[in-house]
Amino acid sequence: MTTTVAAYAAPAAGARLGPTTIERRAVGEHDVLIDIAFVGICHSDIHQVHEGWGAAIFPMVPGHEIAGVVAARGSRVTAFDVGARVGVGCMVDSCRLCANCRAGLEQYCADGPVWTYNSVGRDGRPTYGGYARTVVVDENYVVRVPDALSLDVAAPLLCAGITAYSPLRHWNAGPGSRVAVVGLGGLGHLGVRIAHALGAEVTVLSQSLRKKDDGLRLGADHYHATADPATFEELAGRFDLVLNTVSAPLDFAAYFSLLRTDGALVNLGLPEDPVHVELQSLSGNRRSLSSSGIGGIAETQEMLDFCAGHGVAAEIETIRADQVNEAYERVLRSDVRYRFVIDAATV
Amino acid sequence: MTTTVAAYAAPAAGARLGPTTIERRAVGEHDVLIDIAFVGICHSDIHQVHEGWGAAIFPMVPGHEIAGVVAARGSRVTAFDVGARVGVGCMVDSCRLCANCRAGLEQYCADGPVWTYNSVGRDGRPTYGGYARTVVVDENYVVRVPDALSLDVAAPLLCAGITAYSPLRHWNAGPGSRVAVVGLGGLGHLGVRIAHALGAEVTVLSQSLRKKDDGLRLGADHYHATADPATFEELAGRFDLVLNTVSAPLDFAAYFSLLRTDGALVNLGLPEDPVHVELQSLSGNRRSLSSSGIGGIAETQEMLDFCAGHGVAAEIETIRADQVNEAYERVLRSDVRYRFVIDAATV
Repeated sequence: MTTTVAAYAAPAAGARLGPTTIERRAVGEHDVLIDIAFVGICHSDIHQVHEGWGAAIFPMVPGHEIAGVVAARGSRVTAFDVGARVGVGCMVDSCRLCANCRAGLEQYCADGPVWTYNSVGRDGRPTYGGYARTVVVDENYVVRVPDALSLDVAAPLLCAGITAYSPLRHWNAGPGSRVAVVGLGGLGHLGVRIAHALGAEVTVLSQSLRKKDDGLRLGADHYHATADPATFEELAGRFDLVLNTVSAPLDFAAYFSLLRTDGALVNLGLPEDPVHVELQSLSGNRRSLSSSGIGGIAETQEMLDFCAGHGVAAEIETIRADQVNEAYERVLRSDVRYRFVIDAATV
Repeated sequence: MTTTVAAYAAPAAGARLGPTTIERRAVGEHDVLIDIAFVGICHSDIHQVHEGWGAAIFPMVPGHEIAGVVAARGSRVTAFDVGARVGVGCMVDSCRLCANCRAGLEQYCADGPVWTYNSVGRDGRPTYGGYARTVVVDENYVVRVPDALSLDVAAPLLCAGITAYSPLRHWNAGPGSRVAVVGLGGLGHLGVRIAHALGAEVTVLSQSLRKKDDGLRLGADHYHATADPATFEELAGRFDLVLNTVSAPLDFAAYFSLLRTDGALVNLGLPEDPVHVELQSLSGNRRSLSSSGIGGIAETQEMLDFCAGHGVAAEIETIRADQVNEAYERVLRSDVRYRFVIDAATV
């Protein structure tokens, strides 16, 4: 017995989103039914609606920054009571058997995780995301939102937050380390807040100084304009970790030059078009180029607990569902400080 | 008071090498005078003679895989007696003050090390390498060759050996880890031997199976032809570390696919032409691309001691100095198993 649920969907590639209904599966033994309260708008929602990463499944209901309340639960659910404040991020399932799943790295599941939307579930049916009134998710892919976090500002942590947190932890950002965050958008502003909360010295590298006051308020120690060539001279060899949150092509050679010996440039955005890196720019100083995507389920819970404990949350602009197309245009213009969150009651 | 010494030099870019004489500096307080016994021919000698890495200093006396015996020493030398068996690799000096020098990473000296040849010493004079009868080097940039290693088979360890050893140690190759070595040449054959001696499971990835018997004899557990597309299917996601010893362009995306989660592809060769890597091929599994060059002085000593303790040395073909031009041609045809070493008595 499926349930019919109000949602916002793109009917075809590149189309405007509009109201519709979708079917949610019956609540299985291990499932929770979540009344969605807020859902963040992630840049990757826009990429996927536009098939920027390849052929997609339509109609598409985006949304993988979901915060809400458990409304019902299956008979064998143990982790969440009805009424629990919960979140769902980019994944709703994975094989659970491969080395990565067993290591808590479900995001790197050998079979590929089941993504929250634009994916095919293990039941063979397409998944639909959080631009909807409810969602049904296996409890193993649901995390608890600590009481200290409001659901609206918690929602963006489920993708942007963990995408910043996981590499900061993996590459040991903390007291004594110097982290640069490239780009002060939805992902970047959480990168700054989390890196600062972890104790690192944080530098924002942004095209201009337009958002400098914000950057410093969010926790950055330094703020430099990348349009100014002097920035790259001044900061040469400075950083242990450069997190690139920008999906537009970068002059990678210039950014490599900012790394210390053994420093890492970690790419978090996934550009739509091929980006080429000149290998020679990596040589010397054992610098590395890597890429990181979200984090595992246990690490996502750890991130939420960390954010709650350190007063870290997203800065948001809450919108109605019928403003989503306008919001997409504003995201593409970088005209948001710093994350749109849809009030799911308006879907 | 300089000393006039027989040497083999390239008089100009791309020219054939021929006999000549050079001046060696007087033995300073901290210097040792080394009677060179053997000097390896490194592919980078050929790159530099041909100005493949940019404008070079001529006449050029190549040679940075130097093994010999201390013939004289300065008044304040403490590390080496006359008669000591010693080696000199790619560096003969560095600033000694920067963070990298202080950390034993002189190869990444902030000012750039003084290279053994085709470089300018701190006295402002060009450096000349080991295709010569003697060399004068500060004792801090000289290492001891253990008695268990003959000088001829030790010479190639000074560049090829440390270039393989340092990344294997840095990326923790050892029991339980799987290492692939791309290319079975001068560098690759030492990569196989050292990785095997460290306890790793070693796979050679070579264009064909032509050298398979050698590879297995040198310590490889597996040997695959990269010309066979099945290799990449069979080995997908297998390796913790892929060491690329080939300076010709690779299909990096294919090699990334061989890495496990958190695996690293480390480039050891430095191609002459720009090599482009498609960033997208790195995403997923937090794989990384890095580059490593030789090792520090203390680590070079550690490598020699390790090799002596584990019976690891280069497989060489000893030549006279007047065969050097022919040897260069054979290196360019990959017609050497596995390193040419010049008997310096013939210079």
